[in-house]
Amino acid sequence: MNKTFVLAPDSFKESMTAKQVCLAMEAGLKRVFPDANYIHVPMADGGEGTTQSLIDATGGEIFTLEVTGPLGTPVEGCYGIMGGGDIAVIEMASASGIHYVNPHTKNPLLTTTWGTGELIRACLDKGIRKIILGIGGSATNDGGAGMAEALGVRFFDKQGERLAPGGGALGDLHRIDISGLDSRLAEVDIQVACDVTNPLCGPQGASAVFGPQKGATPEMVATLDHHLAHYADVISQQLGYEVAATPGAGAAGGLGAGLMAFTHSTLRKGIEIVVEYSGLSAKLAGADYCFTGEGRIDFQTRFGKTPFGVAQTARQHQVPVIAVAGSIGDDVGALYDAGIDAIFGIIPHAAAIESLLQEGTTNMERTCENIGRLIKKTAAVSH
Amino acid sequence: MNKTFVLAPDSFKESMTAKQVCLAMEAGLKRVFPDANYIHVPMADGGEGTTQSLIDATGGEIFTLEVTGPLGTPVEGCYGIMGGGDIAVIEMASASGIHYVNPHTKNPLLTTTWGTGELIRACLDKGIRKIILGIGGSATNDGGAGMAEALGVRFFDKQGERLAPGGGALGDLHRIDISGLDSRLAEVDIQVACDVTNPLCGPQGASAVFGPQKGATPEMVATLDHHLAHYADVISQQLGYEVAATPGAGAAGGLGAGLMAFTHSTLRKGIEIVVEYSGLSAKLAGADYCFTGEGRIDFQTRFGKTPFGVAQTARQHQVPVIAVAGSIGDDVGALYDAGIDAIFGIIPHAAAIESLLQEGTTNMERTCENIGRLIKKTAAVSH
Repeated sequence: MNKTFVLAPDSFKESMTAKQVCLAMEAGLKRVFPDANYIHVPMADGGEGTTQSLIDATGGEIFTLEVTGPLGTPVEGCYGIMGGGDIAVIEMASASGIHYVNPHTKNPLLTTTWGTGELIRACLDKGIRKIILGIGGSATNDGGAGMAEALGVRFFDKQGERLAPGGGALGDLHRIDISGLDSRLAEVDIQVACDVTNPLCGPQGASAVFGPQKGATPEMVATLDHHLAHYADVISQQLGYEVAATPGAGAAGGLGAGLMAFTHSTLRKGIEIVVEYSGLSAKLAGADYCFTGEGRIDFQTRFGKTPFGVAQTARQHQVPVIAVAGSIGDDVGALYDAGIDAIFGIIPHAAAIESLLQEGTTNMERTCENIGRLIKKTAAVSH
Repeated sequence: MNKTFVLAPDSFKESMTAKQVCLAMEAGLKRVFPDANYIHVPMADGGEGTTQSLIDATGGEIFTLEVTGPLGTPVEGCYGIMGGGDIAVIEMASASGIHYVNPHTKNPLLTTTWGTGELIRACLDKGIRKIILGIGGSATNDGGAGMAEALGVRFFDKQGERLAPGGGALGDLHRIDISGLDSRLAEVDIQVACDVTNPLCGPQGASAVFGPQKGATPEMVATLDHHLAHYADVISQQLGYEVAATPGAGAAGGLGAGLMAFTHSTLRKGIEIVVEYSGLSAKLAGADYCFTGEGRIDFQTRFGKTPFGVAQTARQHQVPVIAVAGSIGDDVGALYDAGIDAIFGIIPHAAAIESLLQEGTTNMERTCENIGRLIKKTAAVSH
């Protein structure tokens, strides 16, 4: 009987999209098993590449539009509509990402999530009722206030003036007006891919933990933390939501808190969301082998990265899991216990990282061909 | 039933001896198959590491002694006596190697194989009757005249004066006196590990092909080629051996010709010799898997390198062969046809070659552990 291989890798950053990895895996395996069935399930973990992978996995479509970048200037953001047409995928970084600022312009007192709100609104305009939202890679520390404003919320100071964008203005927040909040949001379920459990404020909060990488000096961290605490107080008093200490409220510069306060959202591990919406489990039923992989596999992989999530799912179907990585870190032993049966690297020789990134396809093909050859030979002598 | 793994790698140059590779392979596989039998057969192909591997494979001993280096100054040479005590292994490079000269001192007009003759004589003194002689890596172009002199042959010019050492003096050769040749040589069989078929002279001869890498300028190549042709003429006239056009006579700066003229020697592919004297074939009988490997595996591997020779031998016993390499070159596809079932690299991440060479053991262990894991899993689901 022909074998069935489920190919469920993450993207290899700066080298291949997850779909390209699937194609290379198939090309290599096909040299050994030309008549096998190959099921492509391009994966992601809620981080960069999630939109591309879920769109590729379901045959969906990606739409681009001009939105407000983190510094207020226009940027080209995007969202995807998955195959079937009723679920959208947004990565907040495509509108409000750290890659839109540079060492000179990064300033978390000023950066805003406004563009992320515009992407959500664009999905509402398409009639979408379910949104998968990846929130990694943000440049912001505004508690999601910008996102809320783009969806119709208004923030005022004591003088009744609208607040300026950015976490630096939130200290003046006096009144929140949600009367203009887009009414369609009431019917929209937002599944937030969130792997962190940080609260909004304090030493483990958004400002202290993630602020510095967004450009916050120690003084700015203190200011931002103070402002987010005030923001949470006002939300508590005027809207009745307690977001300050909720795990995940501190994700993406407090966007977690904003989503809790102004939308119907559920924070879940990114890989869980992708596993669910990619239909991975059903595709694994009856498969002979599952191949997964990521640009780098190391001890962190078991904390919610794609190969770990894929292995957990494959284990339910008793499908052997082979992981292929661009780079293998130390201490991968724990991954064996997590259900990854074997891990192979694809690097053929010592070389600069730039050229290795370029030869990713060739190296993935050759590695999977040899894994296939070993499987075939072992199966032959084991009968 | 417990599995039997035959571990038959070459050394990984500048990283691990073949025995160290065996130990690392076993350490990795043992994590998966703790009760398996592991048979170590450290291999070589007649080049660098051949003495160490054959001594390690048979539980022999290595002896060092001061001999005459290629430039006439003393160097520490070595030879091995294999387990059993009646077969010696010599690498000519240990006495007359290119590593003893530098860009300033290399001069194939002057370099001599004298020390190689001294190593052979040391073996005779031990009562040895069979010598395996690896002839790679020479600094010399003297037709083996120095080797012959160290064993009692005398070379004279027209004036009856002894010739100076080196290929530069051979043009003056007038008479060869073999009356002093060590009589014990008559009973000694020298198995020469020689993978080249170059004749002594001409465009494919020792001087033209290998001279330049030993420091010969175009003028020196012409001189040396002319001298070796004269040397062959004198050998033909006075000793009756035709060495000029014999394949392999041009190996090691014409040492091949000297061995033909003055000793009982057989030129064979290095890997064939090592396969025979390591007892690989008998050890493979009944094995479940054979692991081989080399620092680099590429299209050249099928021209007599260790993994190729191991695969050819394993194929006779229908034992699956897995090759593990530090570096994998392009076009390894032909190796599959040659009997290598699968090839895996051990490099875990982009890094400088120096650090990769240092972490060879760790990387070999991890790679073999994962190959073992894949074998175990595949066997389990294939029953």
